[in-house]
Amino acid sequence: MKTQEIADFIGGKLVGDGRIEIHSVASVESASVGQITFIGKSSTVIASNASCLIVPDDFPSGIFNSYIRSSNPKLDLSRIAAVLHPAKKPIYEIHPMTMIAKTAFIRENVFVGPFACVGERSEIGSGTQIRHGASIGDNVKIGRNCIIYPRVYVEDGTTIGNDVILHTGVVIGADGFGYVKDDCGYTKFPQVGTVVIENNVEIGANSCVDRGSLGETRIGEGTKIDNLVQIAHNVRIGKRVVIAAQTGISGSTVIEDDCVIGGQVGMGDHATVLSGAIIGSQAGVLPGKIVRAGVWWGTPVQPLDEYKRQNAQLKGIGRLKDSVRSLSERLAAIEDRAGDNDRAE
Amino acid sequence: MKTQEIADFIGGKLVGDGRIEIHSVASVESASVGQITFIGKSSTVIASNASCLIVPDDFPSGIFNSYIRSSNPKLDLSRIAAVLHPAKKPIYEIHPMTMIAKTAFIRENVFVGPFACVGERSEIGSGTQIRHGASIGDNVKIGRNCIIYPRVYVEDGTTIGNDVILHTGVVIGADGFGYVKDDCGYTKFPQVGTVVIENNVEIGANSCVDRGSLGETRIGEGTKIDNLVQIAHNVRIGKRVVIAAQTGISGSTVIEDDCVIGGQVGMGDHATVLSGAIIGSQAGVLPGKIVRAGVWWGTPVQPLDEYKRQNAQLKGIGRLKDSVRSLSERLAAIEDRAGDNDRAE
Amino acid sequence: MKTQEIADFIGGKLVGDGRIEIHSVASVESASVGQITFIGKSSTVIASNASCLIVPDDFPSGIFNSYIRSSNPKLDLSRIAAVLHPAKKPIYEIHPMTMIAKTAFIRENVFVGPFACVGERSEIGSGTQIRHGASIGDNVKIGRNCIIYPRVYVEDGTTIGNDVILHTGVVIGADGFGYVKDDCGYTKFPQVGTVVIENNVEIGANSCVDRGSLGETRIGEGTKIDNLVQIAHNVRIGKRVVIAAQTGISGSTVIEDDCVIGGQVGMGDHATVLSGAIIGSQAGVLPGKIVRAGVWWGTPVQPLDEYKRQNAQLKGIGRLKDSVRSLSERLAAIEDRAGDNDRAE
Repeated sequence: MKTQEIADFIGGKLVGDGRIEIHSVASVESASVGQITFIGKSSTVIASNASCLIVPDDFPSGIFNSYIRSSNPKLDLSRIAAVLHPAKKPIYEIHPMTMIAKTAFIRENVFVGPFACVGERSEIGSGTQIRHGASIGDNVKIGRNCIIYPRVYVEDGTTIGNDVILHTGVVIGADGFGYVKDDCGYTKFPQVGTVVIENNVEIGANSCVDRGSLGETRIGEGTKIDNLVQIAHNVRIGKRVVIAAQTGISGSTVIEDDCVIGGQVGMGDHATVLSGAIIGSQAGVLPGKIVRAGVWWGTPVQPLDEYKRQNAQLKGIGRLKDSVRSLSERLAAIEDRAGDNDRAE
Repeated sequence: MKTQEIADFIGGKLVGDGRIEIHSVASVESASVGQITFIGKSSTVIASNASCLIVPDDFPSGIFNSYIRSSNPKLDLSRIAAVLHPAKKPIYEIHPMTMIAKTAFIRENVFVGPFACVGERSEIGSGTQIRHGASIGDNVKIGRNCIIYPRVYVEDGTTIGNDVILHTGVVIGADGFGYVKDDCGYTKFPQVGTVVIENNVEIGANSCVDRGSLGETRIGEGTKIDNLVQIAHNVRIGKRVVIAAQTGISGSTVIEDDCVIGGQVGMGDHATVLSGAIIGSQAGVLPGKIVRAGVWWGTPVQPLDEYKRQNAQLKGIGRLKDSVRSLSERLAAIEDRAGDNDRAE
Repeated sequence: MKTQEIADFIGGKLVGDGRIEIHSVASVESASVGQITFIGKSSTVIASNASCLIVPDDFPSGIFNSYIRSSNPKLDLSRIAAVLHPAKKPIYEIHPMTMIAKTAFIRENVFVGPFACVGERSEIGSGTQIRHGASIGDNVKIGRNCIIYPRVYVEDGTTIGNDVILHTGVVIGADGFGYVKDDCGYTKFPQVGTVVIENNVEIGANSCVDRGSLGETRIGEGTKIDNLVQIAHNVRIGKRVVIAAQTGISGSTVIEDDCVIGGQVGMGDHATVLSGAIIGSQAGVLPGKIVRAGVWWGTPVQPLDEYKRQNAQLKGIGRLKDSVRSLSERLAAIEDRAGDNDRAE
C-alpha cells in the first residue's frame, strides 16, 4: 500500500512522497523502511526510521520526509493496521478430521479446523472460523465473520452475534455456581439458562462466561473483555464496556453501557454499575451496591477522591499520634502548674 | 411430569390442579405455561405466569391456581429441576476418533467423545462421560457417573470418585510450583505426588488443582469449586466446602469441612481454616495463619466485626484530625492566658 | 539407584550402608522402604521410615542407618529426584492423528501426540514433546527438550528456547488488550508483535502471555511462572524471576532479573520493578511506578516496614480516639476552672 493510498484511506493530509510502499505497522522506536507508525502527542518529537508517520494536526513540519496529518493518529494507525495486518484467513474449508453433526447448518465460506466439533442443529455464519479443537455444542447460533480460536468451548444453546472474537481457551456457557444447602450438603440449583453475546464483542484467553441459571447471561455489543475474566450466571453487561484481566463479576450483577472496569476487580452479586462508571484495578464492589458514574477505587469501592483522601489520612496517622502526645504533655504541664497554684493558694 | 407427580416427588402438599403438564423450570418473572418456579419468602408475593409454583408452608392461599407447599422451596425446585433437566446423556459409545490405550479399562455405559484420550491402565467408571478433547493420563481412576467436560486434563495417577463434575478446561494434577534456589537460579523441587478428588465434587471452568509435591492434594466429598480457582500442591480441602471464583490457595494449606470461601480470596501456604469458617471475598490469609470458625474479612484477614470497626474508624480519621486541631487551639488559648498571667505576676 | 551412587551423584558423604536400593523420593513422614527423603534443618530430628535421608552437614550422627550429609539437602533431594522421577518420555513418534504442515520442520526425537497441530514453517527442536491436542501456529520456533503439555496454544511467530515447560492450557501469543476509543466505540489497536520465551522457563497451567502489540513480549531465562497468571502485551520479564499464581502484569511493564512476585499481585502498565525486588501477595503496583529492590506490600505498594507500621497504626486508631476524648475532658476541666477563676476575679 502506498503512502498516498494510506492518506486517502484514513482521510488525512499527506506531506511528502506519496509513492513509498508500506507493508506493515511498527512502534516509533522499532520501525524501519517500509513501515508506518504514529506519534500521539506533538510534544514527543523524536527520530524514527519509519518510512511514513501519522502525526497530530499541529505537528511541526520538516522533521520527517513523509507523514500524514490526522486528528487522531492512534486511531488512524489502528485503522490502517487492520488493512495491512488482516486477521489470518485460512482457506475456507471443513477439515476432514472434524466432528460435525449432520443437522448442523454451516454457511458458505466457513473454516472448521482440525479436531473441532459442531453439535446438532448449530448454525455457523458465513466468514466465521472455528479453529483447531474448538467445541461448539448443540443449538448454538454463531453469526458472521467471527473468529473462534483453538480450544474455545461454546455450550448448548448459546447465541453469538457477528464479528465476535473468542480467544483461545474461552468457555462460554458452563454451569453457573449455584447450590442450595441442606443437612446433607449442597444440591445444585438448576443452571439451565443461556448466554447471549452480541455483535463485535471480543473475549480474552481463558475467560469464562457462565450460562444463566434460569434466565440468560448477556454481553452487550462492542464490549471488550480481557484474559482470565470470570462472568457469573445472569450477569448483564451493556454495550461498549471494557473489562481488564482477571476481574470477576458475581451472579446477576448489571454493568451498564460505556463502563470501564480495571483488572482484578471483584464484584459481589446483584450489584449495579451505572452507565459511565470507571472502576480502578483491584477494587471490590459489595453485593447489591449501586455504583454511579464517576471514578471509583478501593475495597469497598468509593469515589476516587475519597479513596485518595483516606489514603493520605492513613499516612498521616503517625503525625496525628505525635500531635496527641505533644498535646498531652502540654496539658500535663498546665495541670502541674494549676496543681502548684492550688497548693500555693 | 404432572403437577401431582411433582408434589409426590418432592413430598409437598399440592393445592389446585394435579394434572397440569410441566416440562421445565424458570424464574418467577420469565416462567410461562408448562413451567414451574419457586417463591423463597412469602413476603414477596408477586404475579407469575408459571403453571405451578413451589411456595413456603406459610404462603397465603388463593393467589395461584396450582402450587405446592414446601419447607424449602428453593431446594425442592432444585430437586425437581434435576429430573426435568437431566445432564445431557449422550449415547454411550466410544467415538472412533479417540486415542484409548489398550490397557485402559473402560466400564460399561461410558461415553468417550471425539478427540479424547485415555492413558495406560486408567479406569473409567460406569455412566461416566469423557467429552470432546478431554485428556485422561495414565493410571487414573475415575468413578461412576462423572461428567468430564471438553478439554479437561487429568494428569497421571489422579483418583476421582463418583458423581464428580469437572467443567471445561479444568487441569487436575499439573506440577506444583516449587523450586530450590541456588547460585545459578531455580531447580525444580520434585512434584511427584498425586491428587485425590472425592465423591460429588464439582470444579468450575479453567480451575487448576496441582498434584502434591511429595504427598497428595485432596478435595473432600461434596465440595464445590467455582471457575478460575487455583489449588496448589498438598492442599487439603475438607467436605462440603464452597470456594467462589478466582480464589487461590497456596501450598499445604488445610481447609476443614463446611467452610465457605468467597471469590478472589488469597491464602498463603501452610494456613489452616478451621471447620465452619466463612471468609469474605478478596480477603488475604497470611502464611501459617489459623482461621477459626466465624466470619472473616480483609487483608490480613480479621473477624468481620473488627474489619467493620476498623473501616469505620478509618473513615473517622478526618474528624479525629479536626478534634486534635481544635484541642490544640483551646490549649494554646489557655497557654496564652497562663503566659499573660505569668507576665502579670 | 544405590545409596552410594546417590551420594556420589550429589557429592555428599554417605554414612551407613551404600548398597540399599532407592527407587523414589518421598516426604519425611510418608517415606518407606526404598525411598529417600531430606531433612532441612538439624533441629527437627524426627523418625522416618525412609531407607536413606539427605541431612545437613551438622546433623547429629547415629539417628538413622543410612544418610548422606549435604550442604543443601533440599537442593540435593531435588537433583536426585530429577534422576529418579524423570519427566515422562513418550516414545518419540509423530502420532498418526495429528495435523502437521508440510513445511513444518520437525527435528529428530520429537513426540507429537494425538490431535495436536503444528503450523507452516514451524520448527520443533530435538527431544521436545508436543502433547495431546496442543496447537502450534505458523512460523513458531521451539527449541530442544521442551515439554508442551496438552491443549497449550502457541500463536504464530512465537520463539521458544530450550528446556521450556508450558503446562496444560497455557496460551502464548494471544492478542493483547488494546483499543482506541472513538465516538462509535472501540477500535482494535494492532496486536501484531511477538512473544519470546527464553531457555529454561516454566509456565503454569492456564496462564496467558499476550503477544506484543507492535514489539515483543519477553520472558527471560530461568523465570518460573505459576498457574493462571496474566502477562500482557509488551511486558518484559528478566531472568530468574518467580511469579506466583493469579498475578497479573499490565502492558509494557518491566520486571528485572531476580525479582520475586507473590500471588494475586496486580501491576499497572508501564511500571518498572527493579532487580531484586520482592513483592508480597495481593499487592497492587500503580501504573508507571518504579519499585526498587527490597520487600514491598499492600495497595498501593509500599515498603514492607511502612506497610506494617501503617497497619499497626490503623489498629491503634481506637486507642488514639480514646486519648483524644480523654484530653478533651482534661482540657474542659481546666477551662472550667479557668472560667471559675475568671468569675472569681
